[in-house]
Amino acid sequence: MDYQNQEIGKVISENFRNIPDFPQPGIIFKDIAPLLSNPAIFKRITDAFVLALKDIDFDKIVILESRGFIFGTAIGLQMGKGLILIRKKGKLPGKVEQFSFDLEYGKDVFEIQSDALAKGEKVVIVDDILATGGTADAACRLVEKVGGVVSAVMFLYQIKDLKGEERLSKYKIINLHVE
Amino acid sequence: MDYQNQEIGKVISENFRNIPDFPQPGIIFKDIAPLLSNPAIFKRITDAFVLALKDIDFDKIVILESRGFIFGTAIGLQMGKGLILIRKKGKLPGKVEQFSFDLEYGKDVFEIQSDALAKGEKVVIVDDILATGGTADAACRLVEKVGGVVSAVMFLYQIKDLKGEERLSKYKIINLHVE
Repeated sequence: MDYQNQEIGKVISENFRNIPDFPQPGIIFKDIAPLLSNPAIFKRITDAFVLALKDIDFDKIVILESRGFIFGTAIGLQMGKGLILIRKKGKLPGKVEQFSFDLEYGKDVFEIQSDALAKGEKVVIVDDILATGGTADAACRLVEKVGGVVSAVMFLYQIKDLKGEERLSKYKIINLHVE
Repeated sequence: MDYQNQEIGKVISENFRNIPDFPQPGIIFKDIAPLLSNPAIFKRITDAFVLALKDIDFDKIVILESRGFIFGTAIGLQMGKGLILIRKKGKLPGKVEQFSFDLEYGKDVFEIQSDALAKGEKVVIVDDILATGGTADAACRLVEKVGGVVSAVMFLYQIKDLKGEERLSKYKIINLHVE
């Protein structure tokens, strides 16, 4: 896969900052702050996302609250694709569709505006981390509920041990980095 | 001011979608979805932000959760400036500084990572709406708490009647649109 030829995985991995015991004791959290605060690295990541999408046919970028907003906006701006928001419950105005899903610790509800997509419009869904896949699965269902088609689901990195690809087996998954 | 010469205010105003009774009965909410889903409009808005910053001396963009993430990322990517996140309580890993503030309905707590900025680093804070100014004021205080200097506070639009400029009177405020 082309986007891995750039050694972008190495750039991502080397610039994570490991924070022990967050959000729970025993978990080592990978802080992405250094990837965002360095504009050269952020640009390399954006370019890698864009390259990874070069053979994907799609119309819009669907961005997931909150960190998906960052990477998804960068991709959309660079590629000239419109942005569609999926947000936590109660944040989007007007008529919305809802989907509730399990998190590692608890439950959450995502929403999309009912008229967000035209029938058959093709989208790429963008988030930062693929963990269990619950969040991305919810996003795929919401896109389909409002008439859209998921061309790919795309992440900065996948936490390999959590096997999120199994939950998303119906979809094309693109990870810039897996560890 | 140059950035208003582009008639960007008109573009923003004409592309809002008015949603009555959100988030409370009697309030007409200005939905920005049409500004995001149309890539030509989103690019015009990004260009207007960039133009408005041409004479501002700054090092980093501080982006506020959640919609500030979208506009701030676009500006940072376009200008080659690093992104620093201010988030709701409990979302940022590692050592953080906190500031709690009043919302129109209730209270909220914002956080920034304690080492987010070098001493004296100059920032532009970006959010979508200037309402009462409580959110932006909290962001300014957090920036200063970690050693940064606020070069400007920047918004897609200001809700004029709420007089947010009074609360932010110490700072340079840039609004692409006021109504």
